[in-house]
Amino acid sequence: MESGPSGGSRPAEPGPRLRGLRGADAAASASSLSRFGAEAGCRAPAVAAVLPAGGSGERMGVPTPKQFCPILERPLISYTLQALERVSWIKDIIVAVTGENMETMKGIIQRYQHKRISLVEAGVTRHRSIFNGLKALAEDQPNCRLSKPEVVIIHDAVRPFVEEDVLLNVVTAAQEHGASGAIRPLVSTVISPSVDSCLDHSLERARYRASEMPQAFLFDVIYEAYQQCSDYDLEFGTECLHLALKYSHIKAKLVEGSPDLWKVTYKRDLYAAESIIKERISQQVCVVMDTKEDEEHVGRCLEEMLKTELNHIKVTSGQDLQQIIVEQCYNFVCMNVMTSDFEETQRLLNMLEESNLSILYPVVVISVHFLDYESVPFGQKMEKVGKNVGKIVCSVD
Amino acid sequence: MESGPSGGSRPAEPGPRLRGLRGADAAASASSLSRFGAEAGCRAPAVAAVLPAGGSGERMGVPTPKQFCPILERPLISYTLQALERVSWIKDIIVAVTGENMETMKGIIQRYQHKRISLVEAGVTRHRSIFNGLKALAEDQPNCRLSKPEVVIIHDAVRPFVEEDVLLNVVTAAQEHGASGAIRPLVSTVISPSVDSCLDHSLERARYRASEMPQAFLFDVIYEAYQQCSDYDLEFGTECLHLALKYSHIKAKLVEGSPDLWKVTYKRDLYAAESIIKERISQQVCVVMDTKEDEEHVGRCLEEMLKTELNHIKVTSGQDLQQIIVEQCYNFVCMNVMTSDFEETQRLLNMLEESNLSILYPVVVISVHFLDYESVPFGQKMEKVGKNVGKIVCSVD
Repeated sequence: MESGPSGGSRPAEPGPRLRGLRGADAAASASSLSRFGAEAGCRAPAVAAVLPAGGSGERMGVPTPKQFCPILERPLISYTLQALERVSWIKDIIVAVTGENMETMKGIIQRYQHKRISLVEAGVTRHRSIFNGLKALAEDQPNCRLSKPEVVIIHDAVRPFVEEDVLLNVVTAAQEHGASGAIRPLVSTVISPSVDSCLDHSLERARYRASEMPQAFLFDVIYEAYQQCSDYDLEFGTECLHLALKYSHIKAKLVEGSPDLWKVTYKRDLYAAESIIKERISQQVCVVMDTKEDEEHVGRCLEEMLKTELNHIKVTSGQDLQQIIVEQCYNFVCMNVMTSDFEETQRLLNMLEESNLSILYPVVVISVHFLDYESVPFGQKMEKVGKNVGKIVCSVD
Repeated sequence: MESGPSGGSRPAEPGPRLRGLRGADAAASASSLSRFGAEAGCRAPAVAAVLPAGGSGERMGVPTPKQFCPILERPLISYTLQALERVSWIKDIIVAVTGENMETMKGIIQRYQHKRISLVEAGVTRHRSIFNGLKALAEDQPNCRLSKPEVVIIHDAVRPFVEEDVLLNVVTAAQEHGASGAIRPLVSTVISPSVDSCLDHSLERARYRASEMPQAFLFDVIYEAYQQCSDYDLEFGTECLHLALKYSHIKAKLVEGSPDLWKVTYKRDLYAAESIIKERISQQVCVVMDTKEDEEHVGRCLEEMLKTELNHIKVTSGQDLQQIIVEQCYNFVCMNVMTSDFEETQRLLNMLEESNLSILYPVVVISVHFLDYESVPFGQKMEKVGKNVGKIVCSVD
């Protein structure tokens, strides 16, 4: 097993860059975790996640394996890792990648500063990759720096839009039932062909479901299943829930998932993922204004106007900027009267630079200036504007 | 049954606007049709298509039914109709729409000048809509202006990327076997839940296929099946191939389809469709140049340069512009030396205006001028440029 370049599988504490982010996440997660007790009558378990990412992406029709395909210049798998990292109660994330992609993966972890990641070598099939990930978590492995979790989540590297809710649901169900998986209605009717490629029979669509990811298992249940299963299963099987049933005699609890769980499989899915990410980040804006009368008036007018176009508009006087950044808003409109000297804008820029947010998504900062002709000579004003615009342009990725 | 606003279900000949287009399609289709004889040992059958388009699009999460959702400002169903219309051997296209969408559909047919379309009222389920479409084609209907086809294609209004090849394959197979349908590999494993939402069993993914569209049937086979099938089938069934098997005892021939056949189901699919269409139209450009030495040299240089970026580059000296438009290229670069007076550019603009191509897709015309300082005074040149640019801007949608 190899560790990511961030210096170990479980840093003692998150880096300073994302302290704020993690702090907010931890608060949100803590309230989620309390649901373990309230809903399922059980305590919060130790949870790890395994991501098989050894696929070649042959269905995509492009030479790059799909998990490494760029979406807005950032590899798909990095979005998926971010989605899991946001959930603070997932202690370890084990990613199985092929030897030839190991360096690429380490580069991604470093560039996007992913934490809590451990890398293992992928097997030649999906099941073998998952098994390798589970072995890394099992206590019986020599030199293992990871501790065995009570519950393990299995997720796909190419399902970037997984939400904490569904992760919590499968983990809670796995704790109670031993195994659990997300399902979705079938989009197409499923049929069984005969050997001569004619219709043998079709399945009644309403009686079947598509098995999606994430799935979760009591670690011992799924590890025992993998240890006992046949080479045929490891070579040709596709379904972890099936292994838990066949070898550990556990009937998985099935949990209805959201449409977001879809797997990036074809090239068109990359287009869809890009559009979804673009829509999400273009649908929120933060208006930052000084507390002075002029800016506040224009700020409120702007808010009213933007409400008809955008989903999320926040207006802040600069007091709670840190919180805005934590909430992952990437678009800012800063308003200043010339004489107020861009204090808030400068503060925002400093915070953005520190947070390195622009590595993750395109960050847009629009600076709006109101010239106050009465107090300062015009030439002096323009000079200031020029100086500050220079700074602002630098901060936009 | 209602006819579209184009003045009847089968106009005597295509309108003057698309005569060139239809001519080229007819030539291509004629060669495809000859495959009926060569490959299947049978003559070209009379073919019609039925499109159920009565769905509410509830899975899309938007108020507009998905078949009417705009992609690049044009409704999805219009792309699908265009895909079928391009195939000249499909004689009639029957679209089943709900009463409340009848006027919308007529408006679409008129605006995008669709031909060979007849409208029927949709039923409350997909099967009932298809049955209504088939009834309109059956000879036993009173006042029917359509003639009964030998083979009927059933396709979805929300699968816009269907190609002639797969239509030909299912029609040929239906002629031989009585029924045929396109299939695709399963993306997810299919499972059967028990009544308490636990896993009962999972299907071995390799032994099953997703049943997609288009499907094709000998008309009598599928019409008989629909006439005999139960109310339960009409209410809850999803699979035409199943009805042909159950009621007409025909085992459909299954034909491997391309990834393009996917069904626009969720909002993300609209994004994907838009990106695919954008990519297609941005990947082809036609460089139009005069036959004079200067333009020709620059034209060839531009071709070399664009080859690294685009899939389809054509360079024409203006002699075969009509053919370029027929081949549905939407991007043009026109090069003129000032003194050549924009003759080719003007010819192209006239043709584009006549063809109404800009209703279907965004059309881009870039006009490049080489000023010949030696022969004409500068002021006079600029005046000419201004005048012509005005015309060009008008032609771009």
